Amino acid sequence: MFAQRIERLTSSLVRDILAAASREGMISFAGGLPATEVLYRPAFPDAADVDCWQYGQSEGEPALREMIAAQARQLGIDCTAQQVLVLSGSQQGIDLVAKLFVEAGTEVAVESPAYLAALQVFSLFGADFSPVPVDTVGGPDMAAFSQAIARARLTYLTPTFQNPSGYCYTDAQRDDIAARLDAANAPLFEDDPYRDLSYDGAAPRPICSRLRRAPWIYQGSFSKTLAPGLRLGFLVVHPSLIDPLTRLKQAADLHTNRLSQVLVMEMLCDGRLARHVENALPLYRDRRAAMDAALQRHVGRQARWHVPAGGLFFWVQFGQGVDTRRLMADALALGVAVMPGDAFFSGEAPASYLRLNFSHASPADIDTGMARLTSALALQTPALV
Amino acid sequence: MFAQRIERLTSSLVRDILAAASREGMISFAGGLPATEVLYRPAFPDAADVDCWQYGQSEGEPALREMIAAQARQLGIDCTAQQVLVLSGSQQGIDLVAKLFVEAGTEVAVESPAYLAALQVFSLFGADFSPVPVDTVGGPDMAAFSQAIARARLTYLTPTFQNPSGYCYTDAQRDDIAARLDAANAPLFEDDPYRDLSYDGAAPRPICSRLRRAPWIYQGSFSKTLAPGLRLGFLVVHPSLIDPLTRLKQAADLHTNRLSQVLVMEMLCDGRLARHVENALPLYRDRRAAMDAALQRHVGRQARWHVPAGGLFFWVQFGQGVDTRRLMADALALGVAVMPGDAFFSGEAPASYLRLNFSHASPADIDTGMARLTSALALQTPALV
Repeated sequence: MFAQRIERLTSSLVRDILAAASREGMISFAGGLPATEVLYRPAFPDAADVDCWQYGQSEGEPALREMIAAQARQLGIDCTAQQVLVLSGSQQGIDLVAKLFVEAGTEVAVESPAYLAALQVFSLFGADFSPVPVDTVGGPDMAAFSQAIARARLTYLTPTFQNPSGYCYTDAQRDDIAARLDAANAPLFEDDPYRDLSYDGAAPRPICSRLRRAPWIYQGSFSKTLAPGLRLGFLVVHPSLIDPLTRLKQAADLHTNRLSQVLVMEMLCDGRLARHVENALPLYRDRRAAMDAALQRHVGRQARWHVPAGGLFFWVQFGQGVDTRRLMADALALGVAVMPGDAFFSGEAPASYLRLNFSHASPADIDTGMARLTSALALQTPALV
Repeated sequence: MFAQRIERLTSSLVRDILAAASREGMISFAGGLPATEVLYRPAFPDAADVDCWQYGQSEGEPALREMIAAQARQLGIDCTAQQVLVLSGSQQGIDLVAKLFVEAGTEVAVESPAYLAALQVFSLFGADFSPVPVDTVGGPDMAAFSQAIARARLTYLTPTFQNPSGYCYTDAQRDDIAARLDAANAPLFEDDPYRDLSYDGAAPRPICSRLRRAPWIYQGSFSKTLAPGLRLGFLVVHPSLIDPLTRLKQAADLHTNRLSQVLVMEMLCDGRLARHVENALPLYRDRRAAMDAALQRHVGRQARWHVPAGGLFFWVQFGQGVDTRRLMADALALGVAVMPGDAFFSGEAPASYLRLNFSHASPADIDTGMARLTSALALQTPALV
C-alpha cells in the first residue's frame, strides 16, 4: 500500500524515548533541548505594525536573508543574500538536501557516529552510507574520508562540536578536508547548529569557507541559540544550488512562517543575538561542569568520556559488555532518559556508548539522574558498581 | 550530480509569474492570496505567559489537536485528537502524503484540472497520473473515476470549490465516490482548504465523512481563513495512517512552529474563528461580483465561465485559438498577472483556460486588470475585441 521508502522509516525507538522523557518526574539526558531558562522570549511587536500575515517568499524575508548572509561572511563564507534559503528549522534543510541528492542506492559519506536524524532522512530517501570514523580525541579518519568521498555523491559533516561525539575539527583537519573535497569536486553539506555554543573559545571557521571549487551547503539554526519552538534555520549555498533548493522548499511548505522570521530579525539587527548567547554561556558551562562531576562521582570507574568544548552532549563510552539498549530501558524505569549510542551509527556500532545531554536538566537533577543511571547500570554489572 | 527526481521538478514558470505579480503597479489575478484586508492580526499575548519556545511535539500542540478534532467531528468525520497531525501549512501535507504513497511509477488519481502544486509534488516523487475530468457544470466523470481508482494507489481530490475549476461536488456525487472508494478499499486524500469560504450556503460534508472502509486523509488549512503567513494546516487521518505520517512529519521539520499554534488556538477556543470568517465573507462576495461584472464587461463575447459558489478563483475558458501562455506574457507586460490553465492539467490541456483570482485585488483593480487583460487578448484576436 505504501511507497517502499516507508520500510526505511526507522523504528520509533527514539520517539518512544523522547515521549517517555517528557513524563512527570523524569530527568532527561536524552534529547537535545537547550536550557529553558535561557530561551529567547521575544517582546512581541504591535500586531498591527507587523506585515507577516500574507503569503511570503519561498526564499525567506529579504531583510533576514541579508542578515544571515552578513553573518556567514563574518565566518569567511563568500556569499550574498541571494544564496540564503530560510528554513522551518534545520531538520528541513536535511529533508531538502536529501531530496536534491539522494535516491535509492545513492552513497552518502557520513561521520561514524553521525547525527541520528540526518541518518534517518538520508536512509528514508534510499541512501547507502560510506562511514568515516570520528575519534573523540583524534577526529576523523582521513584515509577513510578519502575513500568515502571517492564513492559518495554527497558528504554530510557536523565538524563543530559534532553530534553525538562532541568533537571539534581542527583548522588543519578542516583545510585538509576542504582540499580533498576540492580535488574530487565533491559536494559538502556542513551542518553547524552548535557553533555559537562554544565554551572554551571560538571554533575554527567552517569547512565551506575553505572550499575553492567543490559545491557546498552550509546550514545553521536559531533553535539552539534562541528558541526551538520558533522553528527557524537557514541554508547558505553555492550559487549553483540555490535554485533547485528553493523549488524544493516551495514544494515542501511554500515558505517559512513569517512571524518567526520577523521576531528573529529583531534579534539579529543590532547585535542582540550575540549578547543573548553570551549571557547564556555561563549557564551551559556550569551544566557541563555538573555533568562531568556527576560522571566522575558515579561512573568514574566504568566509563570514559571527554569534556566537550561546545554543543550540548557528552559521549560516554562504557565497557563492551554493557548492553546500552537494556541500560536505556532500565534507566527509563528508574526515572532517567538516555540515548543509546548505537542509534548514531549507520553501520555496526563499535562499542557501548550513551549520548547524554547536559543542557536541559539543572545541576541538581544532573546528579540525581546520574545516580539513577548508575543504579540501572548495576543491574547489568553488579560487580563493578 | 542530483537525484533523478530533480529532473521532475517542474519549470519555474509559476514562480516567475508570482514573482512578476509582486512588482510595483502589477494587478495580480495569478496567485491564491486571501484579501489582505481580512487577514487575522492576532493580539499578541504577553510573551512571558506563552510556553511555546522549547521543542514541541511532532503531532502538534495537544490542545490544538483536540480543537481540530472537534471541528472535524462537526463535519461528520468520526475521529479523536489522536488522529490529528498539525502541519506547517497544507502544502506540507501534500509532501508528507506523497512520501507515504508515491514512488517512481505510482499511479495517482487526480482531477483534471487539479491543484497545480499537488501535481508538482506527486510528480517530484515519481507519480504517473490517472486523470478524472471535472466539468465546471457537471462535476467529475464517474466512469473515468472508477477506471482511475482501479489503477491508482492514491486518489487526490479537492471536492469543495475545486482549485482551479471552482466546482463543488454535490451530496450525491460525494456519496457515489465514497461508495466506489469503499468498494475498492482505495485510499482517499481529500484536500479541503476552501470549505469555509462558501458564499451561497454551506458546502456538503466531506467525502471522508462518508467512507466506511477505505483509508482516508482529510486536510484543512488556516491560511485562507486566518493568515497564510502563520503557515498552519492540519491532517485528520484514518487511524492506520497517523503513525507513519507523524514519523514523516518529524523527519521533515520535527514539528510545526509553536507560536502560530498558540495564536490559532486562541482563535479556535471560543468561536472567534467562525465569527472572523463570517465577517470576511461579504468582502469576498463583493469581489466575486466585481470579477463577474468585469468579465462580462470586457470579455463577455470571447470567454465562458461560471460564478463559483466558494473559493478564490474564476476558471475562464477562452476560444481554442487563444494561446494562454502568450496571453499571460502579454498581460504581464501590460501590468496584470494571470495563471495559464494548462499548468493545472497532468495530461494534455483540453482548451484555453485562465485561472483568475478574485480575492486579492480591490474591485477597482479587478476592473482595471481585466481591461489590461483584454488589451493583451486583442494582440492575438484583434477581430474579436
